[in-house]
Amino acid sequence: MSDARVANQVSGRHLLSVGDLGADGIGEILRLTDRFVEVSARAIPRVPALRGKTVVSLFFEDSIRTRLSFETAARRLSADVLTFSASSSSVNKGESLRDTVETLQAMGIDAVVVRHPSSGAPAQIARWLDGPAVINGGDGWHEHPTQALLDCYTIVAERRARGLTPDPGAPLAGLRIAVVGDIRHSRVARSDVTAFTLLGADVTLVAPPTLLPPSMAGWPVTVTSDLDAAIDGLDVVYLLRLQRERMTEALLPSLREYATQWGLTPARADRLGKDTLIMHPGPVNKGVELAAEVADRPNAVITHQVSNGVATRMAVLYRLVGSGVELVAG
Amino acid sequence: MSDARVANQVSGRHLLSVGDLGADGIGEILRLTDRFVEVSARAIPRVPALRGKTVVSLFFEDSIRTRLSFETAARRLSADVLTFSASSSSVNKGESLRDTVETLQAMGIDAVVVRHPSSGAPAQIARWLDGPAVINGGDGWHEHPTQALLDCYTIVAERRARGLTPDPGAPLAGLRIAVVGDIRHSRVARSDVTAFTLLGADVTLVAPPTLLPPSMAGWPVTVTSDLDAAIDGLDVVYLLRLQRERMTEALLPSLREYATQWGLTPARADRLGKDTLIMHPGPVNKGVELAAEVADRPNAVITHQVSNGVATRMAVLYRLVGSGVELVAG
Amino acid sequence: MSDARVANQVSGRHLLSVGDLGADGIGEILRLTDRFVEVSARAIPRVPALRGKTVVSLFFEDSIRTRLSFETAARRLSADVLTFSASSSSVNKGESLRDTVETLQAMGIDAVVVRHPSSGAPAQIARWLDGPAVINGGDGWHEHPTQALLDCYTIVAERRARGLTPDPGAPLAGLRIAVVGDIRHSRVARSDVTAFTLLGADVTLVAPPTLLPPSMAGWPVTVTSDLDAAIDGLDVVYLLRLQRERMTEALLPSLREYATQWGLTPARADRLGKDTLIMHPGPVNKGVELAAEVADRPNAVITHQVSNGVATRMAVLYRLVGSGVELVAG
Repeated sequence: MSDARVANQVSGRHLLSVGDLGADGIGEILRLTDRFVEVSARAIPRVPALRGKTVVSLFFEDSIRTRLSFETAARRLSADVLTFSASSSSVNKGESLRDTVETLQAMGIDAVVVRHPSSGAPAQIARWLDGPAVINGGDGWHEHPTQALLDCYTIVAERRARGLTPDPGAPLAGLRIAVVGDIRHSRVARSDVTAFTLLGADVTLVAPPTLLPPSMAGWPVTVTSDLDAAIDGLDVVYLLRLQRERMTEALLPSLREYATQWGLTPARADRLGKDTLIMHPGPVNKGVELAAEVADRPNAVITHQVSNGVATRMAVLYRLVGSGVELVAG
Repeated sequence: MSDARVANQVSGRHLLSVGDLGADGIGEILRLTDRFVEVSARAIPRVPALRGKTVVSLFFEDSIRTRLSFETAARRLSADVLTFSASSSSVNKGESLRDTVETLQAMGIDAVVVRHPSSGAPAQIARWLDGPAVINGGDGWHEHPTQALLDCYTIVAERRARGLTPDPGAPLAGLRIAVVGDIRHSRVARSDVTAFTLLGADVTLVAPPTLLPPSMAGWPVTVTSDLDAAIDGLDVVYLLRLQRERMTEALLPSLREYATQWGLTPARADRLGKDTLIMHPGPVNKGVELAAEVADRPNAVITHQVSNGVATRMAVLYRLVGSGVELVAG
Repeated sequence: MSDARVANQVSGRHLLSVGDLGADGIGEILRLTDRFVEVSARAIPRVPALRGKTVVSLFFEDSIRTRLSFETAARRLSADVLTFSASSSSVNKGESLRDTVETLQAMGIDAVVVRHPSSGAPAQIARWLDGPAVINGGDGWHEHPTQALLDCYTIVAERRARGLTPDPGAPLAGLRIAVVGDIRHSRVARSDVTAFTLLGADVTLVAPPTLLPPSMAGWPVTVTSDLDAAIDGLDVVYLLRLQRERMTEALLPSLREYATQWGLTPARADRLGKDTLIMHPGPVNKGVELAAEVADRPNAVITHQVSNGVATRMAVLYRLVGSGVELVAG
């Protein structure tokens, strides 16, 4: 994945890592997303931008949420959608995966959304392909770039809705964002931190020491294990999903202990400003990462993240697969 | 499900139980179904009524028959269809199910067809949602409302085709219907009995004592275990599917014994009037619930039930999701 | 399957075996495929030929490659596509399969593509149905007719592209084709040999003695186990996929031994003429059936087989389901 040829392909034709887009690329996606939010609000939320194009969902990990979001996005752009939910056991050999993607290419598929338990699988697929766009729908602990894009969009749109107009050139400039929880195993954290800092935010990671990555070299972030010390003055508190298997791996003492030390309890939520956004990639473990009552507060924008996800993925598909001139009313 | 707020939602926006429709609501679906039977007979069986709407199949139990019927119905209305066939083990925790359906809501999905092994799951989902229509595609031993609607439609249409014009206000008024077999474990029986009696039929349940519900309180029906005593003068004999696992549960002596006592043998079928309809929800265990030869008689309308199922589900989707003004030629 | 009534149905309404088409029928598909190759090359590769028709994929064996090809073909013809990937264990009783297909018929489905591990399953389904067209997408060791059609098309098209214009009446007349590998267990071999010889080719089978069928009676072919003796003067060398489980069945000594004796090594590939086509149904075991380097030579047309597969399946669907007058620009 450090291969320069692939990196170039990526910027132009694939979406493997959110960092490949750069601040300008992310800004372009955010502006396109505004237009697709408008399309999604129509009585008939459909534009002909990708008519005749075929988008394949290639999911080696089950994810109703992400697959539904991408497939809804593709349909709203008038693309055809074909779904392959493969267990990683049935197509786990490099050769079989390669054959599958070469088949997609030979058939004239336009885009492949790949979800895979192995970090780097989408990049490997992009290396093999010469034609279809590859979109990383989440790979191992590595990246989940469309999650980062929809999170950036949600911050900008929700702040705008609260009268806090962003700088178009650096839409998160100066914002203080805390990302809380299992940083170590989170592709969401990895992509979000990259995107937030590219757009100018000041990011603090808050996690139990066992759930921080082995090395933080090169991450332009502040690190702490003390949520109470980090919480004042935040513009965004982003809570990561806790995988319950971390308990059996002895990385955590108990859910109760986690919730007490790193959960967004009502008392902590009361310390947030009224415009401080509470975010979570979902699904929420209520009572763990945040209290059920907190999830219903007006500054909790978790369902907005989900609905913005469709428009963000429309923007990504449009940018990678669209001809650029067809974005007209449906 | 006894919650009044949900009950009100149900009547207006969901289809959880066929009883919620009342006789008038069922009558309205039957009239709409007539129009969609006509649409389905066209060379291009498609109307634009749900263009731009998204219908999700959320099936926690496998059912090719029911899923295919709903999805065909949705396509003929020009809706987009997304499919999720989840094993109940992978999404079996209340929280995960809740998250899944909240995701559907946030994405702007218009309707969800739910098939679930647990009674009440669709009602629970309806309680969580505020937006998408929920259609019960069969839940546990509880209800299968679209099966009841297609069965009512089939009786009315098949009698009409035989010159037996129904009373529009009470289309099954005075009809004698026997429902035969495993009443206890049958969601079809529960929904059919409700719908048949609402439309004015006189219903007799015929079953081995072990396959009757523990309590019949509130069911306006006659009960017997003697099929031969019940068979004369019937307008409809409705045979339920026998689940073979009832034998291992020691609720039945043997298939042969069941077929002899409660099956529609040729001798029994000979005692039916020429216009007495023979019905079954499928799939038929031939030689058990009815003899293979009987299934081919002109008064056996089992395949008509299946084909009417698509038009009935078009009517339900149209009524719950359509804007009410778009039912024009495709 | 030897039933004459079914054989007649087959010629007209189903595609169960490539032999049923006869040389004329194959020639007709090849001419139609030319038109759909042209459609597939358009910016919007879509024609309205099957608008309002429903095609069901009924796959009892997983095959991303074949299912994707058929579904892409159906979409390009504007048909609706419904997918059922059934494990053979869940629908393995004749009665259930019968019920499933009778349901398809009652719902007004237009075509069913069947992939099944049991030889003869598609023919059995065709016997049960009276309405939908049945297309064999591969059944056991029996037949894979659309693979044979796309292979014939690829040979004709690739030779034409090299200035070797075929006789329209006998497009493979006089060509020398070797089919190499596991003939015994290969439905591809069975269908290809039938089609190649119907179109006039001179076919040699090259295989280890353990991988030849028990009887070759009625196959108008030459048989040898010596690839080196057969390789000179070939127009096409067609390598079959080796199933690795043949080793555990003790039908083969080792992969290395197989590759040495029956693989297309660079040295053997050097002996082929520059216009000798190298073909494989995929997925290739590189280094076994052919060397990786050989797969990249200009006369290796394996990816062309895949891309021609979509157009070939469009032709088959169009011929079986289309009304015959609607093939106009999309």
